[in-house]
Amino acid sequence: MSGAAPRGFASDNASGVHPEVLDAIARANEGHVPAYGDDPWSERADGVLRLHFGPDARGFLVFNGTGANVVALRALTRGYDAVICPETAHLHVDECGAPERIAGVKLLPVPTPDGKLTPELLAPGLERAGDEHASQPRVVSISQATECGTLYRPEEITALAELAHDNGLLLHLDGARLANAAVALDSSLGELTTECGVDAVSFGGTKNGLLFGDAVIVLRPDLAEGLDYVRKQSLQLASKMRFLSVQFEALLEGDLWRRNAANANAMASALGEAVAAADGAELAHPVEANEVFARLPADRIEALRSALPGLLPFHEWPGEEGLIRLVCSWDTTEDEVRAAAGALVAGPAQSSRA
Amino acid sequence: MSGAAPRGFASDNASGVHPEVLDAIARANEGHVPAYGDDPWSERADGVLRLHFGPDARGFLVFNGTGANVVALRALTRGYDAVICPETAHLHVDECGAPERIAGVKLLPVPTPDGKLTPELLAPGLERAGDEHASQPRVVSISQATECGTLYRPEEITALAELAHDNGLLLHLDGARLANAAVALDSSLGELTTECGVDAVSFGGTKNGLLFGDAVIVLRPDLAEGLDYVRKQSLQLASKMRFLSVQFEALLEGDLWRRNAANANAMASALGEAVAAADGAELAHPVEANEVFARLPADRIEALRSALPGLLPFHEWPGEEGLIRLVCSWDTTEDEVRAAAGALVAGPAQSSRA
Amino acid sequence: MSGAAPRGFASDNASGVHPEVLDAIARANEGHVPAYGDDPWSERADGVLRLHFGPDARGFLVFNGTGANVVALRALTRGYDAVICPETAHLHVDECGAPERIAGVKLLPVPTPDGKLTPELLAPGLERAGDEHASQPRVVSISQATECGTLYRPEEITALAELAHDNGLLLHLDGARLANAAVALDSSLGELTTECGVDAVSFGGTKNGLLFGDAVIVLRPDLAEGLDYVRKQSLQLASKMRFLSVQFEALLEGDLWRRNAANANAMASALGEAVAAADGAELAHPVEANEVFARLPADRIEALRSALPGLLPFHEWPGEEGLIRLVCSWDTTEDEVRAAAGALVAGPAQSSRA
Amino acid sequence: MSGAAPRGFASDNASGVHPEVLDAIARANEGHVPAYGDDPWSERADGVLRLHFGPDARGFLVFNGTGANVVALRALTRGYDAVICPETAHLHVDECGAPERIAGVKLLPVPTPDGKLTPELLAPGLERAGDEHASQPRVVSISQATECGTLYRPEEITALAELAHDNGLLLHLDGARLANAAVALDSSLGELTTECGVDAVSFGGTKNGLLFGDAVIVLRPDLAEGLDYVRKQSLQLASKMRFLSVQFEALLEGDLWRRNAANANAMASALGEAVAAADGAELAHPVEANEVFARLPADRIEALRSALPGLLPFHEWPGEEGLIRLVCSWDTTEDEVRAAAGALVAGPAQSSRA
Repeated sequence: MSGAAPRGFASDNASGVHPEVLDAIARANEGHVPAYGDDPWSERADGVLRLHFGPDARGFLVFNGTGANVVALRALTRGYDAVICPETAHLHVDECGAPERIAGVKLLPVPTPDGKLTPELLAPGLERAGDEHASQPRVVSISQATECGTLYRPEEITALAELAHDNGLLLHLDGARLANAAVALDSSLGELTTECGVDAVSFGGTKNGLLFGDAVIVLRPDLAEGLDYVRKQSLQLASKMRFLSVQFEALLEGDLWRRNAANANAMASALGEAVAAADGAELAHPVEANEVFARLPADRIEALRSALPGLLPFHEWPGEEGLIRLVCSWDTTEDEVRAAAGALVAGPAQSSRA
Repeated sequence: MSGAAPRGFASDNASGVHPEVLDAIARANEGHVPAYGDDPWSERADGVLRLHFGPDARGFLVFNGTGANVVALRALTRGYDAVICPETAHLHVDECGAPERIAGVKLLPVPTPDGKLTPELLAPGLERAGDEHASQPRVVSISQATECGTLYRPEEITALAELAHDNGLLLHLDGARLANAAVALDSSLGELTTECGVDAVSFGGTKNGLLFGDAVIVLRPDLAEGLDYVRKQSLQLASKMRFLSVQFEALLEGDLWRRNAANANAMASALGEAVAAADGAELAHPVEANEVFARLPADRIEALRSALPGLLPFHEWPGEEGLIRLVCSWDTTEDEVRAAAGALVAGPAQSSRA
Repeated sequence: MSGAAPRGFASDNASGVHPEVLDAIARANEGHVPAYGDDPWSERADGVLRLHFGPDARGFLVFNGTGANVVALRALTRGYDAVICPETAHLHVDECGAPERIAGVKLLPVPTPDGKLTPELLAPGLERAGDEHASQPRVVSISQATECGTLYRPEEITALAELAHDNGLLLHLDGARLANAAVALDSSLGELTTECGVDAVSFGGTKNGLLFGDAVIVLRPDLAEGLDYVRKQSLQLASKMRFLSVQFEALLEGDLWRRNAANANAMASALGEAVAAADGAELAHPVEANEVFARLPADRIEALRSALPGLLPFHEWPGEEGLIRLVCSWDTTEDEVRAAAGALVAGPAQSSRA
Repeated sequence: MSGAAPRGFASDNASGVHPEVLDAIARANEGHVPAYGDDPWSERADGVLRLHFGPDARGFLVFNGTGANVVALRALTRGYDAVICPETAHLHVDECGAPERIAGVKLLPVPTPDGKLTPELLAPGLERAGDEHASQPRVVSISQATECGTLYRPEEITALAELAHDNGLLLHLDGARLANAAVALDSSLGELTTECGVDAVSFGGTKNGLLFGDAVIVLRPDLAEGLDYVRKQSLQLASKMRFLSVQFEALLEGDLWRRNAANANAMASALGEAVAAADGAELAHPVEANEVFARLPADRIEALRSALPGLLPFHEWPGEEGLIRLVCSWDTTEDEVRAAAGALVAGPAQSSRA
């Protein structure tokens, strides 16, 4: 790596740590405190999570997003339960079978046009309730923002929660990019979760400027029962917990979460406009948060690759030739967006690696 | 927490991060790099692990010690296998059943006087090999240092490896405190593992000055097959991997691992001498690494608690009235040892919290 | 229940035991023999299975079809593997999540028009091979006869086996109704499995006249390694094994398997013709084995229900209004088919329960 | 096998089926009935189980004893729970790790002199309740008769139930030989279970004259919730359920269960007396049900082997040289006991295989 700081659009977890988060870690690095969360930073993190998600919320900090999803599903399910989710869900396509093998649930993936479940799409998954030969539908899991970069409006989440609850199911929200969704919809975190009737959230920190760390947040007190054991047994209990807690404090006590997400969203919006305007290019999905899915001719994909720094400046998306994903991050700059936009319209770009 | 930096003897994971490690993290915090380990820091961490554990070693960095143990056991076992370990093993008593539930193995715990397996103690566990009604003995798991703070000499490990291999078993070493053992025995890390015939190691970083992070190290190339998938599925694949990797680089490229362990061991040795010399006190086990197990009269326990800072200055050990554990850390100071030693011999100490 | 012997079309497992099977059980009921399969009947059952499936076949008798499928999948997979199967597979829709929870695999269900996988339908499931974020495609599982009552021709199975093997996958065949398929295709059991390159078979006995019992048959010797332990641990090792073994001997040593399947197939064929000829009725799938899937007007469904004995003479099929399934069995008679056929064409039938 | 009917003492599952049971199966073999338990035999079996175990009992018939134990433990535990049992428990030593791998529980085995837990032996297992690092003690599991052939008196079971309940645990009784215990103690089945406060029973049929079949019986209605799904998912739901149900009806509607157990117990008692009287022999445990554990000189073991028919007339017991187990069965005869007794006292017996 050179002394410069190349940034691409591969993923928001290709980015580093926000300096305020690193500073907070450094300030927490003094003396000894009890391990496993019995420390003042963890107490404050609890408080700050309740501020955002409501007084009944209980937060359980974990190492990563897969950990958050698996711990959340274990909290919500019995041994013979199924989870209905979009076919594009991270749960289904990007966790190497951890929901099945580690949480022991069956996934019922539903094809969707845009990564979003609707009551109509959800309904067939409820048919086998009460049939002992079938895994029992127990959880509906949605992602906000979705894996297509699209968003649910609060009333859409509420409708899913109501249908779920009316049928004895629970609603889980995979919020690896919940901050981006909240900023884009000009909502608070609670307005998109607690107030819509969501039962449990996987709340992402890593993609929004933390060193590492996500949280399981349960929104009904009874769902917290036994969760300490589930987290520990699921390999997700950090011993030096203060360093997880202080990061969430730094992110959520002020508006850092909002600033980070706002930058990522704004950069994605600008990049999306450049795609929409480019000859022969089109957006595969509306750009609603910090991800751009674009269909490009092969030569534009090559030009873009040449114009951007790094070995992996973006991902070609599996399943469709010519579809790429561009993700903006808390630290994406206008210069980088301009470079990408230029490559979309101009002739063969100069390689940044020349 | 006050501005001062109280330190107790509760655990080596009550301590913070060594400043050189935090500096290394900060230096790695520039620009974007591919997630999940395809970055220069991870490549260097691979190299540094091979330097210590030999050219055939393959390292897989994970979040914590339970994660390392579970991933290692999954790498070593088939679906119907058993793991023979001392009754005191962390695996057996402190991982909330993760080996059984997540790795799917049966543990065969063996009572020992001092936390150490011997060929004699191990032999009965081999009896049911080939009997379809019994979980098949497949792995012997030992801890170095043990959960009693004692050590295996290299020839003791070699003898266990030979017995294991002669019977078609593999030897796993839980090295949450392997650095302390190596320093105490004036060995390299490889001399206590690779050169003794150990097949897989859980190598601890968190307890020796890292922010977070442990490693699964397999010492035969065939054992690495599929381990990438196992790590990911076991919720242990960090997206911002560079920040795990750079910590191991900082710890192992020079002698930081040795300096940290040496301080912890020296302080424990001094503390052990104070216990041995105190009226009415005795050591439950020889002090060979950085842990002191002491039997104390109730009033001395109380005096010690008063003399030391923090709400939890040490642990009363389950299973025996009057047994306490005192753990020294990379940052334990002579002043703290002196304060503890004083409380062991003097009358009722002045409370530090007065 | 009355003295009469009502028979409907609910399922081939609504039927009883073929008298020759019950006689064989009675003859085996003398004296003591070692439990768990070390007895002469089990040795003979082994031999008879090898006669049908080839000299490299190894049979493991189990209690039921779900048991056979789970044991077979455990034999074929590592901890992070996926199984590609039709969306209609029994594995996916009718085993209450046992493949996920008990075998620990992820299923990748593929929509099909007729319950049959093809190389084209299978190919997308191979895309994520080598990607550590995805469950690894390891097994292709097909049913013969399918859950739609359709059949694979031998060359279709061979093509799937070749594609699977070329990509490092294994082919599993769920043969709960393999006997019906073999009779319908005028094949031996081996011609539809071993000779097509199938790696493992779940071979159904229960639906073809046994009291209880199915078999896992692996067709490559290496796949049998450890299977004894897997069967025992999966709760499928019968202690009085002779009574499982003697049933398979009775079924397979002569042509009982063929006679039973032939009757079921012939009755289904006649019933299928009646459906095809009836006004307003149509076959949802060609009738190729012993199952008839029919689309009927509501009044014909009601008439049929009245004409047939028992509370549950057939199943209305989930997922489509007006779709019913009629299954014929080893003991279905022409009278019963005639009664059903009459109800399909005539006006409101006289209730048999009047 | 010859036309004669050799019987040994290897196990009560080396025996065959009681003729009344086989007759009952044959009588149930007419016509079609709905699969999976919705049939008149299953309704009657439910009723007969409630007659014995009380009106709140709910029975779930399964294929075998391992199945019964795993289904029962799944019904009683959450994902992070531990089961305290004697070190000799079948659960621990003879189920190939099914409780750990399939039920997902951790076993906490307790050494006992005679296979019996006591409140004193049980107490240390409760210590880690509430500690998130430890599997949570949730179930106490005892066997009646024990794996040593000894018995709990009702008041001993009641004391364990009270201790369990006082600590928020549940009591499971592995009753693979419960019939033998009830006959020996002149009790009803309910007096040894329901009336003692037992929460769930694995009730053995296979060892007491059935073709195959055991039952999970839960004694509190809330424990039955979801058990249908658990049984199905655990591979234990028989499709032709009537043939399981009718066996339990035959066993329990009259006194067949009692006659079978009484014969086995009486023969074991006589055999135990012969051991106790023989020179150089001694009983390892009191003979209280249908098992005899004897310490014999090597030449007596050889003489016994020669005197008895079959290749495996009894088991040499693992873990102690010279310890053998002799099990009597529903069909063991006085002649066989006399033959064994003769071999214990006489010089080298004539081989029955001469």
